[in-house]
Amino acid sequence: MKIGSSRSSFNNVSRRTFLSTSAAALLSVRAVTAKGEQASGGDPLPSWNDGPAKAAVLAFVRDTTEKSSPKYVEKADRIATFDQDGTLWTEHPLYGQAMFALKRVGKMAPEHPEWKQKDPFKSVLAGDRAAMSKFTETDWLQIVAVTHAGMSTEAFEGIVNDWIKTAKAPRFDRLYTDLVFQPMLEVMQYLRANGFRTYIVTGGGQEFVRAYSERVYGVPPEHVVGSSIVTNYDNSSGKPVLMREPKPFFIDDGPGKPVGINLFIGKRPQAAFGNSGSADFKSGDTQMLEWTQAGGGARLMMLVLHDDEKREYAYGPAAGLPDTGVGTFSEALLTEATKNAWIVISMKNDWKQIFPWQK
Amino acid sequence: MKIGSSRSSFNNVSRRTFLSTSAAALLSVRAVTAKGEQASGGDPLPSWNDGPAKAAVLAFVRDTTEKSSPKYVEKADRIATFDQDGTLWTEHPLYGQAMFALKRVGKMAPEHPEWKQKDPFKSVLAGDRAAMSKFTETDWLQIVAVTHAGMSTEAFEGIVNDWIKTAKAPRFDRLYTDLVFQPMLEVMQYLRANGFRTYIVTGGGQEFVRAYSERVYGVPPEHVVGSSIVTNYDNSSGKPVLMREPKPFFIDDGPGKPVGINLFIGKRPQAAFGNSGSADFKSGDTQMLEWTQAGGGARLMMLVLHDDEKREYAYGPAAGLPDTGVGTFSEALLTEATKNAWIVISMKNDWKQIFPWQK
Repeated sequence: MKIGSSRSSFNNVSRRTFLSTSAAALLSVRAVTAKGEQASGGDPLPSWNDGPAKAAVLAFVRDTTEKSSPKYVEKADRIATFDQDGTLWTEHPLYGQAMFALKRVGKMAPEHPEWKQKDPFKSVLAGDRAAMSKFTETDWLQIVAVTHAGMSTEAFEGIVNDWIKTAKAPRFDRLYTDLVFQPMLEVMQYLRANGFRTYIVTGGGQEFVRAYSERVYGVPPEHVVGSSIVTNYDNSSGKPVLMREPKPFFIDDGPGKPVGINLFIGKRPQAAFGNSGSADFKSGDTQMLEWTQAGGGARLMMLVLHDDEKREYAYGPAAGLPDTGVGTFSEALLTEATKNAWIVISMKNDWKQIFPWQK
Repeated sequence: MKIGSSRSSFNNVSRRTFLSTSAAALLSVRAVTAKGEQASGGDPLPSWNDGPAKAAVLAFVRDTTEKSSPKYVEKADRIATFDQDGTLWTEHPLYGQAMFALKRVGKMAPEHPEWKQKDPFKSVLAGDRAAMSKFTETDWLQIVAVTHAGMSTEAFEGIVNDWIKTAKAPRFDRLYTDLVFQPMLEVMQYLRANGFRTYIVTGGGQEFVRAYSERVYGVPPEHVVGSSIVTNYDNSSGKPVLMREPKPFFIDDGPGKPVGINLFIGKRPQAAFGNSGSADFKSGDTQMLEWTQAGGGARLMMLVLHDDEKREYAYGPAAGLPDTGVGTFSEALLTEATKNAWIVISMKNDWKQIFPWQK
């Protein structure tokens, strides 16, 4: 599938931010949540193979939470941020939120007969992947405008919920929420059990991710920072609503991630997890990790490398593979990671298990 | 003092949002914090006189937290929002943040000899209150631009801290942080002791209030929602900073308050406390209370009425007094309050004590 393989970085930013996704296996996550809170005895990270990545997580928690540690961090400052697409759940072949948007176009098409003649809708309806891969920023904004705006926040939440509870992801033919990474759920749970607040900091839509974040990741809406469009308060009917307008408000991607972290959290994270960074660093997680590390003391910066074609997907220059334009892990980011001693997690080698249902 | 008494609502919005304030008596607040967490036995609201306002707070907590109550609210949804200026601390004769801005102009003047000839700075430096009362939106934005922007977020926090720890408020000749309302500190503490998260939702500057919110109100930075200017990530020096730009980003006032609540919290409050609303409702707390009430179930909406000239200040149409343009409690808001059964707190009658140090 080649949707969205254009390499224009502006276009990539747009897709990564507005048209991003979500996932996790409901039942399995519940099991993790129930057991993880105790975190007493046993291995808190059973889905991880022994190695430097697992050791780094364990050392970080020890360093920041043991009172006698010179790197001890007060509970109030224990904040960890996680990118979503490609870091917490599968982003290939295309961000779930983009899938959602394209599906919505199809569903809305009967009310818009003119779309059959009018791009970008015409190409979407025709399933013309070659044309879609060349969509410009303006094309994607038109799609976002009709699929994500022109309705109240409550109506949007309902639509996302309908979709997320039924839509199946390609290849695995499972719910998007089944494609969450079990090892990352364990890290989130382990951090929370040790007094950390775990925030999702996503280029994807803030309200999109909030619709399922609590259920899927154990992350409440107020701990989801993401991209957003303008909303306006409207009480003209006597029942107030917040109307979603077809106008970008905040782009939580690339250099926008530290901005969003400061805006929404007001504190610098102690730990940050991502998986992508374009060669020009305009999109992805590079700045989030930079900003985290610049705080000094005990800091943990980790990047998920998709190098496991057998169990999930393998893609991107850092894995020695082509860049599909979705979740780019560029060579430039790999250089930064090496220079700054950020830890690269090999899905293939570091993860015993990928998905909750996949042993 | 007549600074900022222009009645242009646009101008009022600007002053209320960008040029807003903060306060609370450090030692006394600490005492409340230490004792309130227990909340076992005794009167949780000792600074309140018995009456409908105090009874409403007690009934609301009972209704939302007793498992057997038909209006029981899950802990995850226990959210209460508080305006700051005039609701948590004194806003007269002028918002503390406006005082901060004007003081900064004076401090920066030696480096800007041209200001002596150039308005709005000329009028500020001359202490020309008549001229200042006619400042336009553009004038105030110019003042904000030089006093609040052009520096990193860290530098700004340092400047705010220097000011807040030394600047004295008019009339009482005490620190601004001494002019916090003891009864409201008790309500915040009482709500927190009962599982509520207390958010400040202010028209004032988000980063300004965050500099002292934890120390003064027991509210951590991530629970402060306010107005903000654009910030940009800058790593050109190799040490990343977030630079504050002279450009408004979000105005958390009037209809912006529900927007900010949804954006930052993602949940509707169960309780909301304010004190102002212009006649056109474009600034103040009206929509925050409307939005809160529209959620149904047990909801608490309260407005502080400044009718105590002896112990604090008395002002505004709702108190039968002139509107000074600062913290307007309009007749229109009073009508809304009556219609919607929002509870008006009379500082004079409902509060046994106003400030922590004033028995």
